[in-house]
Amino acid sequence: MKRVLLTGANGFIGRYCTEALLNAGFEVYAACYGACAAMPEQAHCFELDLRDAESVSKCMQELSPSHLLHLAWYVEPATYVHADENIDWLNYSLLLLKAFYASGGERFITVGTCFEYDLSFGTLNENATPLDSDSLYAAAKTSLFRLCSAYCARHSVSYAHARPFYLFGVGESEKRIVPYVMRNLLDGKPVKVSHGEQVRDYLYAADVGAALAAITASEAEGAINIGAGSGIKLKELFAMIGRITGREDLIQLGAVPARVDEPPVIVADNSRLINETGWVQKYSLETGLKAMLTAMRSEIE
Amino acid sequence: MKRVLLTGANGFIGRYCTEALLNAGFEVYAACYGACAAMPEQAHCFELDLRDAESVSKCMQELSPSHLLHLAWYVEPATYVHADENIDWLNYSLLLLKAFYASGGERFITVGTCFEYDLSFGTLNENATPLDSDSLYAAAKTSLFRLCSAYCARHSVSYAHARPFYLFGVGESEKRIVPYVMRNLLDGKPVKVSHGEQVRDYLYAADVGAALAAITASEAEGAINIGAGSGIKLKELFAMIGRITGREDLIQLGAVPARVDEPPVIVADNSRLINETGWVQKYSLETGLKAMLTAMRSEIE
Repeated sequence: MKRVLLTGANGFIGRYCTEALLNAGFEVYAACYGACAAMPEQAHCFELDLRDAESVSKCMQELSPSHLLHLAWYVEPATYVHADENIDWLNYSLLLLKAFYASGGERFITVGTCFEYDLSFGTLNENATPLDSDSLYAAAKTSLFRLCSAYCARHSVSYAHARPFYLFGVGESEKRIVPYVMRNLLDGKPVKVSHGEQVRDYLYAADVGAALAAITASEAEGAINIGAGSGIKLKELFAMIGRITGREDLIQLGAVPARVDEPPVIVADNSRLINETGWVQKYSLETGLKAMLTAMRSEIE
Repeated sequence: MKRVLLTGANGFIGRYCTEALLNAGFEVYAACYGACAAMPEQAHCFELDLRDAESVSKCMQELSPSHLLHLAWYVEPATYVHADENIDWLNYSLLLLKAFYASGGERFITVGTCFEYDLSFGTLNENATPLDSDSLYAAAKTSLFRLCSAYCARHSVSYAHARPFYLFGVGESEKRIVPYVMRNLLDGKPVKVSHGEQVRDYLYAADVGAALAAITASEAEGAINIGAGSGIKLKELFAMIGRITGREDLIQLGAVPARVDEPPVIVADNSRLINETGWVQKYSLETGLKAMLTAMRSEIE
């Protein structure tokens, strides 16, 4: 049985990944930042602070994982895009890779972002689309990709870098757009949004978790997009949330201006994910949103 | 008077930079790794180990430099391209930038390499040529560029990243091709080289130092190539060294195979350097080689 160490296991995507890695047949060591909340029983959950090099090294020596799926990062919703902490987390991640290699690790997976690309290209492909990171977050993720690629090639460690596009799911910060809209509609409050003409590639978080597990279990190397491979206009996404909550009337399109530099289209070319990892999308936007709504309603009751 | 802190001041290029920064009217604080050897009198030379964060922070508080030209890096000739130390030096460099910013620094200059580019493009331009780093050295330099760009944009620090192409000069490691050929010819030994059809952009180190000083003194931001803007076939470069040493007969072209993946042409588009910094090339290849030969001969006597 392959043993995977998952970092950021109790984060938003981490909980979906834990489930998906177990389903993929891995023995899962789920490293949590702070308390290990509501994790599947079969996972071995434990606390680990990746900023503490000594704990990381000790953990790696004790577990000797064959695989490492590294989700943990600085993710403070309002500030992470421009925060100096991105530089620190690049550094923690490289120390983690070194410790993983030193303990005999075989396959390392990092998680980047679609914002690493030059977004003016619209549909984004791992090989054809140039990278053009204008935030410290994207610059740090691109640097992570380049440095891990070179390090792993040098040390014969198998390496892939997943690039999730837009996603939504249970447990997501309510500062983000989908839960924000859903929560307000459930509360009967008007929702002021922009024109909504922006086309985005949205995927339900359980499908993102499954994609990360599929990438981990595969032998595919290099950058791999995670997305539905098709876009939806934000106004259509909002309308869908409106319909399933029964409060489409509260959505006020065009009530706030769109960001001036907002790219019109951000869609993943997901052919690597499909052809090289065997991942299959299980949730449509609608079934994903309904699952999220069910969870949100059960919180209220 | 502007005050510049120069790191790596007693390295190969650093000594040329010290001279050029003084000529450009800077008050120069020349941080040396180890002993400060044979530096111009007007420069304030001192020892500084950039791996020691506390010393760096203290130095920055004491000097409060307005400008910082950061040359220091891991440069062990035989191993630096693939060495894990590149990751460490990326980190030391980012700590240096943070300390510089904290002490009120205004303009930060880093030094990269032409190897950050996708070399299959031949003539390399800062904006048009995609980056494609396949070594840990190039990946770390590209990461340095992206992270410093994002950090400096965020904190309103002026930032440029110089990308020198090929260079040669007095004080260069004799493991590198120009001094290696020159030394052997001077010693009357045969020199085995490849076919020499590779076209490369070579510049004398005094011109590189002057270019770095010009970039530092300018307000140009982003990546800036440093090169002659024209290429020479290596076999012609070797023949030139042969002629000025009088031992062209000892050069054995084709005696060793060229690297399989060696790019045919690596030439700098140097229009940013010329148009935005006012730099002017002073040494032809021949006058540069003759200056180097004079220095090498005076060592022998």
